[in-house]
Amino acid sequence: MDKDMESVLKKAEVLVEALPYIQKFNKKIIVVKYGGSAMSNEELQKSVITDVTLLKLVGLKPIIVHGGGKAISSWVSKVGKEARFVNGLRVTDAETMEIAEMVLGRVNKQLVTMVQELGVKAIGISGKDSGLLHVKKKYSDGKDIGFVGEIDKVDPKVLFDLIDNEYLPVIAPVGFDDNFDTYNINADDAACAIAKAVGADKLAFLTDIEGVYKDINDPSSFLSRLTCSEADALIAGGNIGGGMLPKLNNCTDAIRQGVNSVHILDGRIAHCLLLEIFTNKGVGTMFTAD
Amino acid sequence: MDKDMESVLKKAEVLVEALPYIQKFNKKIIVVKYGGSAMSNEELQKSVITDVTLLKLVGLKPIIVHGGGKAISSWVSKVGKEARFVNGLRVTDAETMEIAEMVLGRVNKQLVTMVQELGVKAIGISGKDSGLLHVKKKYSDGKDIGFVGEIDKVDPKVLFDLIDNEYLPVIAPVGFDDNFDTYNINADDAACAIAKAVGADKLAFLTDIEGVYKDINDPSSFLSRLTCSEADALIAGGNIGGGMLPKLNNCTDAIRQGVNSVHILDGRIAHCLLLEIFTNKGVGTMFTAD
Amino acid sequence: MDKDMESVLKKAEVLVEALPYIQKFNKKIIVVKYGGSAMSNEELQKSVITDVTLLKLVGLKPIIVHGGGKAISSWVSKVGKEARFVNGLRVTDAETMEIAEMVLGRVNKQLVTMVQELGVKAIGISGKDSGLLHVKKKYSDGKDIGFVGEIDKVDPKVLFDLIDNEYLPVIAPVGFDDNFDTYNINADDAACAIAKAVGADKLAFLTDIEGVYKDINDPSSFLSRLTCSEADALIAGGNIGGGMLPKLNNCTDAIRQGVNSVHILDGRIAHCLLLEIFTNKGVGTMFTAD
Amino acid sequence: MDKDMESVLKKAEVLVEALPYIQKFNKKIIVVKYGGSAMSNEELQKSVITDVTLLKLVGLKPIIVHGGGKAISSWVSKVGKEARFVNGLRVTDAETMEIAEMVLGRVNKQLVTMVQELGVKAIGISGKDSGLLHVKKKYSDGKDIGFVGEIDKVDPKVLFDLIDNEYLPVIAPVGFDDNFDTYNINADDAACAIAKAVGADKLAFLTDIEGVYKDINDPSSFLSRLTCSEADALIAGGNIGGGMLPKLNNCTDAIRQGVNSVHILDGRIAHCLLLEIFTNKGVGTMFTAD
Amino acid sequence: MDKDMESVLKKAEVLVEALPYIQKFNKKIIVVKYGGSAMSNEELQKSVITDVTLLKLVGLKPIIVHGGGKAISSWVSKVGKEARFVNGLRVTDAETMEIAEMVLGRVNKQLVTMVQELGVKAIGISGKDSGLLHVKKKYSDGKDIGFVGEIDKVDPKVLFDLIDNEYLPVIAPVGFDDNFDTYNINADDAACAIAKAVGADKLAFLTDIEGVYKDINDPSSFLSRLTCSEADALIAGGNIGGGMLPKLNNCTDAIRQGVNSVHILDGRIAHCLLLEIFTNKGVGTMFTAD
Amino acid sequence: MDKDMESVLKKAEVLVEALPYIQKFNKKIIVVKYGGSAMSNEELQKSVITDVTLLKLVGLKPIIVHGGGKAISSWVSKVGKEARFVNGLRVTDAETMEIAEMVLGRVNKQLVTMVQELGVKAIGISGKDSGLLHVKKKYSDGKDIGFVGEIDKVDPKVLFDLIDNEYLPVIAPVGFDDNFDTYNINADDAACAIAKAVGADKLAFLTDIEGVYKDINDPSSFLSRLTCSEADALIAGGNIGGGMLPKLNNCTDAIRQGVNSVHILDGRIAHCLLLEIFTNKGVGTMFTAD
Repeated sequence: MDKDMESVLKKAEVLVEALPYIQKFNKKIIVVKYGGSAMSNEELQKSVITDVTLLKLVGLKPIIVHGGGKAISSWVSKVGKEARFVNGLRVTDAETMEIAEMVLGRVNKQLVTMVQELGVKAIGISGKDSGLLHVKKKYSDGKDIGFVGEIDKVDPKVLFDLIDNEYLPVIAPVGFDDNFDTYNINADDAACAIAKAVGADKLAFLTDIEGVYKDINDPSSFLSRLTCSEADALIAGGNIGGGMLPKLNNCTDAIRQGVNSVHILDGRIAHCLLLEIFTNKGVGTMFTAD
Repeated sequence: MDKDMESVLKKAEVLVEALPYIQKFNKKIIVVKYGGSAMSNEELQKSVITDVTLLKLVGLKPIIVHGGGKAISSWVSKVGKEARFVNGLRVTDAETMEIAEMVLGRVNKQLVTMVQELGVKAIGISGKDSGLLHVKKKYSDGKDIGFVGEIDKVDPKVLFDLIDNEYLPVIAPVGFDDNFDTYNINADDAACAIAKAVGADKLAFLTDIEGVYKDINDPSSFLSRLTCSEADALIAGGNIGGGMLPKLNNCTDAIRQGVNSVHILDGRIAHCLLLEIFTNKGVGTMFTAD
Repeated sequence: MDKDMESVLKKAEVLVEALPYIQKFNKKIIVVKYGGSAMSNEELQKSVITDVTLLKLVGLKPIIVHGGGKAISSWVSKVGKEARFVNGLRVTDAETMEIAEMVLGRVNKQLVTMVQELGVKAIGISGKDSGLLHVKKKYSDGKDIGFVGEIDKVDPKVLFDLIDNEYLPVIAPVGFDDNFDTYNINADDAACAIAKAVGADKLAFLTDIEGVYKDINDPSSFLSRLTCSEADALIAGGNIGGGMLPKLNNCTDAIRQGVNSVHILDGRIAHCLLLEIFTNKGVGTMFTAD
Repeated sequence: MDKDMESVLKKAEVLVEALPYIQKFNKKIIVVKYGGSAMSNEELQKSVITDVTLLKLVGLKPIIVHGGGKAISSWVSKVGKEARFVNGLRVTDAETMEIAEMVLGRVNKQLVTMVQELGVKAIGISGKDSGLLHVKKKYSDGKDIGFVGEIDKVDPKVLFDLIDNEYLPVIAPVGFDDNFDTYNINADDAACAIAKAVGADKLAFLTDIEGVYKDINDPSSFLSRLTCSEADALIAGGNIGGGMLPKLNNCTDAIRQGVNSVHILDGRIAHCLLLEIFTNKGVGTMFTAD
Repeated sequence: MDKDMESVLKKAEVLVEALPYIQKFNKKIIVVKYGGSAMSNEELQKSVITDVTLLKLVGLKPIIVHGGGKAISSWVSKVGKEARFVNGLRVTDAETMEIAEMVLGRVNKQLVTMVQELGVKAIGISGKDSGLLHVKKKYSDGKDIGFVGEIDKVDPKVLFDLIDNEYLPVIAPVGFDDNFDTYNINADDAACAIAKAVGADKLAFLTDIEGVYKDINDPSSFLSRLTCSEADALIAGGNIGGGMLPKLNNCTDAIRQGVNSVHILDGRIAHCLLLEIFTNKGVGTMFTAD
Repeated sequence: MDKDMESVLKKAEVLVEALPYIQKFNKKIIVVKYGGSAMSNEELQKSVITDVTLLKLVGLKPIIVHGGGKAISSWVSKVGKEARFVNGLRVTDAETMEIAEMVLGRVNKQLVTMVQELGVKAIGISGKDSGLLHVKKKYSDGKDIGFVGEIDKVDPKVLFDLIDNEYLPVIAPVGFDDNFDTYNINADDAACAIAKAVGADKLAFLTDIEGVYKDINDPSSFLSRLTCSEADALIAGGNIGGGMLPKLNNCTDAIRQGVNSVHILDGRIAHCLLLEIFTNKGVGTMFTAD
């Protein structure tokens, strides 16, 4: 067999290896939280969007929930605004909210366009469209931090309608409250709430870390699988850092409300989504029920 | 009959008068170009959105196409950008385009929210979603004026999908070209192209004028109805001012491509849409086929 | 603002006031018992049919149940028939039943035609069509009063089929028993049974009274709203006249079996239906759950 | 083989013989004009309704169009009305029309009930329901003969809706004109117009004659099949009596507008419909295209 | 009345007698186990297929489950194979299984073709298609008898899909186990399992006996109806012969799992199916619930 | 980057490369003629079935048409039958036809089972099911060669029904003529006729050759693409060997009747289907329109 043929056959093998996964996840909904480095690097952007598009083409039903990356801060400073903090949290006053909504709106359409360049129809909406994400004001230790919302009701009908009509939904994490005022929502929280509301099979967070370590200082303690109980124990053990804590809580919360698996992926690795879903080894930490 | 009863019966009469119009336009699509004063005044905003919502509730199928009002210019100057002009037309460089898209995105969600406050589900998209508005670059006398697009293809499928699922579509006039670059589109042009593509029964422009006059200097020469031929004659007669000309061309163009009637309405009058559609007298200029 | 414009704006206001009601009752079924004066006066006929048609056009799903008005008695005497009574109730012998069915059949088609003059498709049926109204023979204190039926089973499938195909059903209160003999049914009872069987949101009786009074001798004691318990108390108090009693029982019965509101309207007021449904004040007595 | 078994096997044979016909006419529409003796004799009534019901059960889609039999004349005289004639045709004044409509309405429900006794759902309508039969006034040699209508438009949508929902439609031949006035229609004409409008495969007239004879005085000249051209020749030959002429014209007209076969049956023979359709021999005259 | 007409009317009577049965079994599923003499005699073959086809045409939904008749043994000997037995049961080794599957496949297509000659679309499948019949290996008193399977799971989806698309399914009793090995299945067992899985209204076994006798030696003790309890009693009484026992158990089992009636028919009588279903007398033994 | 990660990323690349092809052929029908070596070698069998299953899972709609491989000849000789030839063609007498049908039936179910082992539902039919393949007798230079059929009508409805219900159809090339006699059909011809009848996008022949050579003696003259005209020229040039000629005619015939591309693949290469469809290079000869 010549060189050419050999390389050609290797390709066949890879496709064949993906077969059981393609089959297993056929028609399943996967919510992808898209943010972090994977958003600022153009090549990684391309790789994420390609992965999501491919997932759709081989029969899954992906939904993208995105953040605003660094663009929000950059625009806030561009208009000469001073940042204000309460308990270390950025205060989202009316003007900041306006900028955030504008920036998220534009990022939303950029992602939509990237998906469509690959030939898949996408529609970008925010949590205000069709009443998707209803929030109540969130306080930080009782202190007012402005238009930061906590989701208290998801109306997923619009997502089912879009998916049924073969569109790939791209969602900006902006919501509204009882007075129809606009609120910013943490994108992780939005992805988690949406995954639960649509009965997603998978929820994947693209992050800037490799995943979860049993001991953050011991590289050999990387965990590629974790049950809810194990995660609880880890948290109770006090080994989980501040930034990681809410993410872990989101993971176990989603699993406990019916999402089949939740994945913390290293968004800095090209095609991490594809590799996690279509290969046995995977490239991040997967949470499952006990 | 006492006073109360009399007033109550008057109400009944008005509702009954609307009956034949409600029936005539049942399930018909009406595209509303929303811009101008009706956009900056909060009360007029409320009145326009109420009208459109009511149209939907009584069985029509409205689509809103909106402009950005004064917010775009205001944000451009906020970031300290110098305006540049070619042949008197504003040049839309990349940064201006970015701001325009952000502002239009936010206006879009504001309109969506206002519709939903009245209990009707809306979804806001731009011409980039689902490939709705494809453009080619527009030149001004051969001069490059940046990211200003001329619509050359409308893919209305997304609008039919949204309407069939009972959503009210709200559209920002932003498009994309063969390279998937983003372009600004004149909102009147967008409304006209969409009306033709979806086979709208009606196209209504909310403007800051009363309508069309035979002789602009003679208030008694107001025209409440105009056929395409009459409009052509008027244009040929040279009595139509510069700002009015493209609007008139849009009107006759839409009629000639199958839209049943086009309306130039005075957006400064509260509920002008309702009055034009549900009363015989009307409050603007209506274009029809010959 | 000139006179004309003022009147025009008043019209807009009325339409806008109707908006929340149109929305609230969207796609809801309303059963209208049509009888009494509203049936003999040509102008009132026109007003009732216009109201029902308008209700349909703005998105409700009306069903008309009608009586035979004075036409039955008039035809009975025309053929020289002597009326016979038992306990004060007219005996419906075979020939009377034959006349009643013929007259109701013709009234049915007259109503159908009036609806269609206003551009809405209607289909007139009796309780015998598709087995809609199954009855058992009714006795008056054990005395045989002929072909007078008491509904004991409603098969609403035909009504759902007609409504789903966008027809307005018009129903003559005639039923059949186990032997497939024909029976006359009290139109109020028929309307009530149908409202319950189709899960109507509203049931409206067009009557020749203004509504319910707490004290029939005190005009100021008019009740525009009444809960079931209040109605029970009123009945227990002995203040309800003989003719009114079965009507009240029908009202509370319907409410208790799931109809959202029942209305006793003064059919002598033009457009009483429209006014009751689309204005806050209303023009009759509305029954609701406690 | 014993006697019992023999008789049992004969039954099997008859069922088997019907097989190809059942198959051939599967899902085909057959319009049955029901009138004459078959209407006045109770046993024949039963037989006709049984046949039609059986046709429906084995997969055909029958539609009944009925006349009023002798009941109309009987009721006209009952109210002491004098008959008036123009050119030998009965004048249908307003009162006669009223009686006709009432009588037809009752006959309609009787037929509906008989069908339902056999377990098939039926709905009885007149040509006024859903605008089925639109007429213009018919004159007799220029003389006004009252409310006698000539069908000029059939809107068959209601029939397709009823058939699609599995109902057997029963139709009284009453129509309306541009002023929504009520008109009597010849039942043969109504059946013919309906058969053409719904694209029926078959049209069957239940009559009081055996069928068509080449020579009315020669019993041996009975014609069990006849093409349109043959019928034309027969008419041209002058051998067709006055009462027969319009029927023959209806037959050839229906065939020429797409009905596959038209049958003149002897309604005085029990189960003539079944025999004509499910046996080779048949019992009447069948018209087909050339 | 002449001779001809008399015979014609007899035909009508037979058809009319079938009416209530046609109606009663409208859209009901009937599973027919086809085997025995009815399979080897060409005339009986024709009669069975005609009956099943007619059942389909008049609105029932038949499913045929067939055996292989004598063809399997004949082919086994044709290839010079020695038969081997364990506990009196034929051992189905791999080669015998191969022959059985081939023969059953061909019989399957023969039946399909016979149905289609009568104008009805049929599709022939085995229990391996779409995973219809899953089995586990069956042992005879712990002895291995080869590829003989016992059904442990039926996936009836394919049957509903075929029936919904108007096909008549013809099924060969071959199944597969967890290793996807091929197994022979007793055709009676397959028919019974399928009837239960699809919720059949009827299950009919075409056999070479007349039905069940209370006392096999007393011809006058024939039982045309039998409840489950009566069958149990009969079995307990020890009067049921060896060959009959499993059949009776299948009958009571099917009834107890929801099949409405099970019939043991004498396949040696032409049209026994038709006669059992469309006449009161019937020609076999019918089992029903108590 | 470590070794592991590198290999993982290679996998991602392969999947990504397949993306445009998966998208391009989404929902397209591909008919695969399965025969030759790919049928006798167990590993190759596995590879073909895996490929077809994967095609289905990623959104294409494959249909398998298979031959009988060497099993037919083997069974013919097993029963001691002498082969007879006319003009070098095997004569298919009744017994041979019987064996062929039995063998093809069993092969059919083997393929069905292999597909289902991979988790995809398959249904195996022959051209006799639902009247798929109607033939007329084929003569060889006027000589009778028995039950060899030439397809003259394909009724593809059953294939659309199966595909719409998500089944993968597996077809044995057996047909029937006007007398409902059974005929053998060349599997290449069957695949070609089916591809045309269902409007397939692709038709792929798995063969025992590498593809088409311009000059059969010059390995460097391999043609990986060929238009119809080029194929015609090649044939006209006389360089195409006897066995190849009918195959080429099938190819150009299919293209000319609307199949988008036809592929001659080397079935001896594992996963040749996957490689041809999902990589640019391909592994066989592809025919397209000019």
